[in-house]
Amino acid sequence: MNILIKNVFFKEKITDILIEGNIIKKMGENIALDVFPDKVIDGTNKAVIAGLVNCHTHSAMTVFRGWGDDMELESWLSDKIWPYEAKLTDEIVYWGAKLACLEMIKSGTTCFNDMYWRIDAVAEAVADMGLRATLSSVTLDASNSQSVKTVVDNVEKSFCNRKNYSALTTFALGPHAIYTVSKKILQWIDDFSKANDLLIHIHAAETQTECNNSIKSFGMTPIRYLNSIGILSPRVIIAHGIWVDDEEIDMLAANDVKVVHNPNSNLKLASGYRFKYHEMKDKGITVGIGTDGCSSSNNLDMIEAVKIASLIGKAWRNDPTATTAKEMFKCATVNGGKILRQNIGKVQEGCLADLVLVDLNSPAFTPNFNFISNLVYAANGNDVDTVICNGKVLMENKHVPGEDEIMKMASKAAHKLFFEL
Amino acid sequence: MNILIKNVFFKEKITDILIEGNIIKKMGENIALDVFPDKVIDGTNKAVIAGLVNCHTHSAMTVFRGWGDDMELESWLSDKIWPYEAKLTDEIVYWGAKLACLEMIKSGTTCFNDMYWRIDAVAEAVADMGLRATLSSVTLDASNSQSVKTVVDNVEKSFCNRKNYSALTTFALGPHAIYTVSKKILQWIDDFSKANDLLIHIHAAETQTECNNSIKSFGMTPIRYLNSIGILSPRVIIAHGIWVDDEEIDMLAANDVKVVHNPNSNLKLASGYRFKYHEMKDKGITVGIGTDGCSSSNNLDMIEAVKIASLIGKAWRNDPTATTAKEMFKCATVNGGKILRQNIGKVQEGCLADLVLVDLNSPAFTPNFNFISNLVYAANGNDVDTVICNGKVLMENKHVPGEDEIMKMASKAAHKLFFEL
Repeated sequence: MNILIKNVFFKEKITDILIEGNIIKKMGENIALDVFPDKVIDGTNKAVIAGLVNCHTHSAMTVFRGWGDDMELESWLSDKIWPYEAKLTDEIVYWGAKLACLEMIKSGTTCFNDMYWRIDAVAEAVADMGLRATLSSVTLDASNSQSVKTVVDNVEKSFCNRKNYSALTTFALGPHAIYTVSKKILQWIDDFSKANDLLIHIHAAETQTECNNSIKSFGMTPIRYLNSIGILSPRVIIAHGIWVDDEEIDMLAANDVKVVHNPNSNLKLASGYRFKYHEMKDKGITVGIGTDGCSSSNNLDMIEAVKIASLIGKAWRNDPTATTAKEMFKCATVNGGKILRQNIGKVQEGCLADLVLVDLNSPAFTPNFNFISNLVYAANGNDVDTVICNGKVLMENKHVPGEDEIMKMASKAAHKLFFEL
Repeated sequence: MNILIKNVFFKEKITDILIEGNIIKKMGENIALDVFPDKVIDGTNKAVIAGLVNCHTHSAMTVFRGWGDDMELESWLSDKIWPYEAKLTDEIVYWGAKLACLEMIKSGTTCFNDMYWRIDAVAEAVADMGLRATLSSVTLDASNSQSVKTVVDNVEKSFCNRKNYSALTTFALGPHAIYTVSKKILQWIDDFSKANDLLIHIHAAETQTECNNSIKSFGMTPIRYLNSIGILSPRVIIAHGIWVDDEEIDMLAANDVKVVHNPNSNLKLASGYRFKYHEMKDKGITVGIGTDGCSSSNNLDMIEAVKIASLIGKAWRNDPTATTAKEMFKCATVNGGKILRQNIGKVQEGCLADLVLVDLNSPAFTPNFNFISNLVYAANGNDVDTVICNGKVLMENKHVPGEDEIMKMASKAAHKLFFEL
C-alpha cells in the first residue's frame, strides 16, 4: 500500500510525502511517482509531525479516570486503586487499553511504553488498534510474597506469549520499583534482559518518601541502590527520576540509562516538580516524556504533557529560556524513538511511517509564525486530524472507525469493575 | 427569544433548561412550557457548565502568538513586544480582539476582563462577537512622560465613548502597574473609579524584580505601596499577585481586593509559581483565574488554565489534596462573576444565560464518574460544543459562524504588523 500526502506543512515549507509500505520513501515538492498511489491525503492547511511517543503509561488505567482525585497518596492507593486492581479481568483490561489506544490515536501518539497487569489483554487491544507499543507486565514479589520461582515462571511465560502479539509490539520487562521487587528478582531480570536483549521499564526516584524509605531499607537512595546491585544499563528505562542528585545523574549517564519525565502526574500527585532535564541532557542522558496512567494524570494527551514539561521547567528554574518548546517536543518524538529503540520520531525519508497531521485551521495556529511554539504552547491533542502508524491510516478527519463502540464498552467495563465485581 | 435545552447532564442528573430572553428561567426534568420555544437544543451526551470567566487578558495580543517565546523577559519585551505595540492600528487590534473572542467562544469562555491599547477597536470586536466583557484601556505615564492632564483627558474620553459599546460591555480603568503609573495618576484613578463606580484592573506583584524595584523606588513591596497610597478597595482587581506575604494578603483581604491567578503565564515567563490560593481564600479573598495575553501564555483556553492552576498548586505545596479541580473551577466561574460584578458563573434559575455545553462523547469523559474532575484534569477547551451568551447562541456543533474569515483576517493583520508597518 502506497500513500501520498500532498501539500502538507513541514518546517516552514509545503511538501509531499510518499509512504511505501511502512516506510517514508520520499519527501519533497511535487515528488514524481513511479506508481499511482493507493491513497492520496490532502495535506492542505495541515502540518505533519512525527507520531508522538508516550514513554511511560499504564494504558488500561483509563477505566480509573476520575475515580479518585485530589486525595492523599496513601488513601488513594489503598482505597481507590489497589482493591480494584485486584478485581481486574482480561475483559476490563482489554477495553481499558483499547480506550487508551483510541485516546492516543486521537491525540497524535503512535507508540507507547506500557507497564500493566494482564499483558496479553493489553497486547490484544494494541493489535486491534494498530498502534506501535512496548509492553511489559508488572512484576513484583515484595507485596505478595511470591516465590522467586513463581515470578520467574510468570515472566518466562509472558515472554513466550509475545509471539502472539502484533508485529508492532515489543516485549519488555516491568519490575515495578525497588520497594516492590526484591534484589534477587531485579538481578534475575537484568540477566534475562541481557540474554534476550529486552528493555527494562521501572519506576524510580518518583517521590521523596521512596527516597527516604530507600535510605532506611538499603542505606542509600534509589538510583544508588540500582547502581550498587549492578542493574543500571542501556536497556533500563526509568520512569519519573525526579529525586536524583548530581552523583546519581552521573551514574545514570555512565550506564546510558534512559529517563522518562511525567510532568502532569508528578504535579497532580505532588511527587515533585523539579525534574532535572538540563542537568541530565548536559550529561548526555536521553530524556523522554510520558503521561503516566489516567488514574494519576487523567489523560494521555502528549501535546499537553510536552507543554507542561516546558512550562514547569521554566518556572522552577526561574528561567524563561529553559526547557524550550522545541527541546520538549524532541523529547516526545526523537528521544522517544531512541528510548524504545525504534526507527521512529522523525519525519524523514527511511524512517517508519508513523506520522500525524495537525489541523492548522484553528485559533491555536493563527497566526502561524512559529509552528512548534503554537503546537506546544497553544494547541492540544484535539488539534490532531490524521494519524498514520506503520504506513496504515488509523484516523482521518478526527474520526477513528468504531470509536463510539470503544467508548461505550470501556465505560461499561469500568462500571463493572467498580460496581459489579 | 426562548431557548429550551433538552436532556443535558448537570450535577449527576439529566435536566432541561429554559432560557427566556437573557435569563435562565427554569431548570428541571421535563419542564412544562407556557410558550413554544423559539429554539430547542438537544443536550443528549452533553454537560452544561456556566460560561467560563477569563479575569485577566489582553485579547488583541493573539496577533503576537508565537512571535517571541522561550526568551529572556527583557529582550522579549524590548525586541518582540514594545516596538510592535507602538505600531498597532485600530484595524490590527480589532482583528486581534476578534480572533481572541473566537478562541474564547470555541473554548467556553463567555466573559472576560481585558486591558489593552485602542479600547474602542476592542469594544467593536466584542460587540460583533456577542461576548460579555469588562474593558479597560492601558493607562500609564511613567514611560512616555505624558502630562497628568493628557492621561486624565484620555481616560475621560474613553469613559464617554463607552456609550457606543455593546450592552454586554462594562468600562473599567486600567492603570498598567506601579512601575509605569505615577502615584498622582493612581490616586486620580481611584477617585474617578469611586465617583463612577468603576472597576480598576492593574498588574501587581507579578515578578520578584517588580518587588525588588518597588522596594528600591518606594521603600516597600507593591501591595504595601498600593495600600500606603490608599488605593486598595473592593473595586480593585489585581492581576498576578504572586509575590505577596501574609501581611500583604491581610491588606488585600481588609480592602476586599480581588486577585486573579494566571498560572500559564506565570510559569512560561518564569514569574513565579507559588500562587497563595489557600492563604488568600482562608482570608476571604475572591480569587479568579485568567489566561493573560497570548504573547505570554499563547492561548485563551480557560479549561487548561484551571487544570494548570490545580496541578501546580498541589505540586509546590507538596499536597495532592490542595487546589482541587472543584475549587479551581469555581474560581473560573462563580468567582469570575463576583469579580466582574455580573450575575453569571452559575447554572441557576435567575442567572444570566451564559452557558456552555461540553461534548461528553470523547475519551476525556469516558468513563464519567466525576464530571468536574474529567473536565479539569482530562478535557480541554476543544471539548466545548455549544456556547450561549446573554441568551444568544454563539456556537453550535463546535462551529462559530464566520470563523474561517476571522482567522484569515487576523492572520493578515498580524503579518501586516510584523512585516509591513
